[in-house]
Amino acid sequence: MDAETEFVHQIALFAALLCACIVLGHLLENSRWINQSITALLIGLGTGCVILLTSGGKSSRILEFKQEFFFIYLLPPIIFNAGFQVKKKRFFQNFMTISSFGIIGTLISFAIISYGATLLFPILDIGYLEIKDYLEALGAIFSATDSVCTLQVLNQNETPLLYSLVFGEGVVNDATSVVLFNAITKFDVSDTNLNTALEFFGNFFSLFVLSTFLGVFVGLVCAFIIRKLYSGRHSTDGEVALMILMAYLSYITAEVFELSGILTVFFCGIVMSHYAWHNVTHSSQVTTNHAFATMSYIAEVFIFLYVGMDSLDVEKWRFVDNNPGKSVWASVILLVLIMIGRAAFILPLSFLSNLTRRSSNERIGMKQQFTVWWAGLMRGAVSIALAYKKFTGSGKTSQPVNALLITSTISVVLFSTVVFGLATKPIIRLLLPGSNTAESSSPRSVPLLGNGHDHDHDDDHDHDPESNTPSFKKLLKSPTHTIHHYWRNFDDAVMRPVFGGRGFVDPLT
Amino acid sequence: MDAETEFVHQIALFAALLCACIVLGHLLENSRWINQSITALLIGLGTGCVILLTSGGKSSRILEFKQEFFFIYLLPPIIFNAGFQVKKKRFFQNFMTISSFGIIGTLISFAIISYGATLLFPILDIGYLEIKDYLEALGAIFSATDSVCTLQVLNQNETPLLYSLVFGEGVVNDATSVVLFNAITKFDVSDTNLNTALEFFGNFFSLFVLSTFLGVFVGLVCAFIIRKLYSGRHSTDGEVALMILMAYLSYITAEVFELSGILTVFFCGIVMSHYAWHNVTHSSQVTTNHAFATMSYIAEVFIFLYVGMDSLDVEKWRFVDNNPGKSVWASVILLVLIMIGRAAFILPLSFLSNLTRRSSNERIGMKQQFTVWWAGLMRGAVSIALAYKKFTGSGKTSQPVNALLITSTISVVLFSTVVFGLATKPIIRLLLPGSNTAESSSPRSVPLLGNGHDHDHDDDHDHDPESNTPSFKKLLKSPTHTIHHYWRNFDDAVMRPVFGGRGFVDPLT
Repeated sequence: MDAETEFVHQIALFAALLCACIVLGHLLENSRWINQSITALLIGLGTGCVILLTSGGKSSRILEFKQEFFFIYLLPPIIFNAGFQVKKKRFFQNFMTISSFGIIGTLISFAIISYGATLLFPILDIGYLEIKDYLEALGAIFSATDSVCTLQVLNQNETPLLYSLVFGEGVVNDATSVVLFNAITKFDVSDTNLNTALEFFGNFFSLFVLSTFLGVFVGLVCAFIIRKLYSGRHSTDGEVALMILMAYLSYITAEVFELSGILTVFFCGIVMSHYAWHNVTHSSQVTTNHAFATMSYIAEVFIFLYVGMDSLDVEKWRFVDNNPGKSVWASVILLVLIMIGRAAFILPLSFLSNLTRRSSNERIGMKQQFTVWWAGLMRGAVSIALAYKKFTGSGKTSQPVNALLITSTISVVLFSTVVFGLATKPIIRLLLPGSNTAESSSPRSVPLLGNGHDHDHDDDHDHDPESNTPSFKKLLKSPTHTIHHYWRNFDDAVMRPVFGGRGFVDPLT
Repeated sequence: MDAETEFVHQIALFAALLCACIVLGHLLENSRWINQSITALLIGLGTGCVILLTSGGKSSRILEFKQEFFFIYLLPPIIFNAGFQVKKKRFFQNFMTISSFGIIGTLISFAIISYGATLLFPILDIGYLEIKDYLEALGAIFSATDSVCTLQVLNQNETPLLYSLVFGEGVVNDATSVVLFNAITKFDVSDTNLNTALEFFGNFFSLFVLSTFLGVFVGLVCAFIIRKLYSGRHSTDGEVALMILMAYLSYITAEVFELSGILTVFFCGIVMSHYAWHNVTHSSQVTTNHAFATMSYIAEVFIFLYVGMDSLDVEKWRFVDNNPGKSVWASVILLVLIMIGRAAFILPLSFLSNLTRRSSNERIGMKQQFTVWWAGLMRGAVSIALAYKKFTGSGKTSQPVNALLITSTISVVLFSTVVFGLATKPIIRLLLPGSNTAESSSPRSVPLLGNGHDHDHDDDHDHDPESNTPSFKKLLKSPTHTIHHYWRNFDDAVMRPVFGGRGFVDPLT
């Protein structure tokens, strides 16, 4: 069998497994414990076992992907969809809390994990690690949370504050971890003084600002093109194709300039859903909502399936054969550090955030704080991808300490996703009995069955004088001022509702 | 710059070019000459020139794809969408004509091209070719038409007969060429007698039947799963994801069993749009219509852009440097043979087809015959992909005759797509003045702006006693009988229109 035929066989098997994940995930959706990610992970583990047995212990994977595959193809649709579907009003209302959790929290968590590991790992005697390894590997890799699991049980309509906190923190945290990882990789640790530290923070924040700006800019250009070219003669597939390609372009351009593609494509999604979405046909609106969600859904299932299969890869486990105890202890230490690191910022930051909230309804209570803490304990695909980036390639896996860190990462991801993940539904049901999670209609489908986006937009245009629209939102709007002015004078006739009842809404007037 | 960074740069440039193609294609849509494919091809050629100049004549491509990339990723969405969007009633009404054009016509065309080339190519003295090369390369490769260009100017609503003929022939022809190519590759030409000839035709038709059956089967399974699992609690992205993945699964399974994936995924699309489409939410209906069209649209633009860039690849032209005249003559001979081969089956087969049509409205007039003939003159991505499959790999390009055939293929594709393509809009406007092609609203968007599919389905369920529903359609329905029966007894309450006005329609009752 030549390589091409083998590749076709592998793809066929993988496609069949993806279908199985979707169908089984749907069947188990109303279960008390299991969710979509865990289903995919378990199917991946099961398939890995079968392949391991049939191949005589040679391999556990159907397909082998480089870690670039994850960053170039799978992550962008997930994060773009996150930005596109987020309830913007609530996101920006809680913007300060979300960004303090996401940025300051991640930095605190990073400091605690890397400091703790520097203290505790030498005791295990696992081999020599440089300070940079501690910072990069243990700090940055393990501060990347994976809140997909929790989001699958939280409901955007029933616990909106919690949803936007967990969701927003997840995205900002993803971005922060990647930015932090890249910043440390470039940073010369051996020669630390005030200047280099300042330079580091300067780098870090310029990456943040530039990435956000790039995303907003591409989103606005896309909205402008659609408004200018497609208003007269709409073409649904042209509009949808343009939105997809320009979103991807924003991500990949950010990567070219070594910015954070995640942050860029997230803000590109927000801007597109705010400006471009209103100027396309009703069909395009429905299509973009669901097509982006579907792409993100397939990418998520793909990742968990692959992580499940990949975690049994014998290559990686071979080097810990001699010392299984060390690998277990390293994973336990990391898990405990993750838990401490997370608690260490959620309590004080929530306290600070509560000081600014007047009504008691808006405050983040203890139960909410616990949920946010819990939601961030899961480690997922971002951690694994960063670990591969750091510890594999150019034969690095052959050093025992690197192999051990890879297997510890896999253990932490598997344990946190499966064990913490399984406990998430019951815990949330216990803590927030009103949220009615699993018994209500499928949580995933609620924001997607047409209402999520529409309602959100209505929200945004509901200029309630009492709502304290944050200044950041106005800031976001200001760069569009000239376009706005132009648009106002643009053929007004175009704005009449032409297709269906909803028709076109001008978000700027 | 390492390989990974370079790859990211290449993808960024490619994404930007795709965006440019879509925007420019939209701007030029109302032009008298240009269409989307030609725009992409010209942008590809232009970029190829720029890269050729800046790289000092070393390369003309941004990215290099293997030909598998085309067959594994780009072709399936195009053909699936073709099946999904085709007006089924009309397709099956003209089924005999379409399949005779697509199968018998392609075989006639194949015979004429390969026989003509066997006679004329030795005169050119281009080097030794085996009989199998003539059959495979020249016959099968050049009988694969590319009707995407013509479809972009024909309008499904204004010239329905013509549209379904050109469209249907294009798909069946694609499938026939690939099946023919594979059948010849396996076939031992050196030992031909009646038995091997019969075996060949047996192979050919069993490939056809099995491929069709597989597509129908997967489509029905998908419809069944959606009906069974998603009726109670719909999840739009689950439904859409399942349809996409199962369609892809049908294609790749066909490839695994060495059937024709094209035919399989085409029939899978037909069955899904007939059975699965009616059982999903209204949002899913809109989303699938447009998302599949968008995927197909991006894949088409991608192919033409790549063909444009790839055609300037210096590697392939190096071997004809000594003898540019021969390459030109070979291309001219092939073009003339293509024209003769096409005329040789359209005239007699149309005559036969007209004998079975009673009303003069339904007959295929001379103008229509000319349009169908013209539409099939374009050679496109399938030809190029087959030529690469045949003549490259394992250092085959180093033989001058192989390189010459590759460059001739590229020349024929470029010439036919650009020159014939440019003339298509004016010719159709001249021949069929009533069809109102370019002046009407964008032809591409007409079947997509919500009405195409709905209307089609209403068509299909409009049980007009006078319409001679062909028996093939009944045949298609019969395998679902048990499911049908089951479905009838399935919870009837589920079938009430729940979401929106259209709600759920049972195609089987």
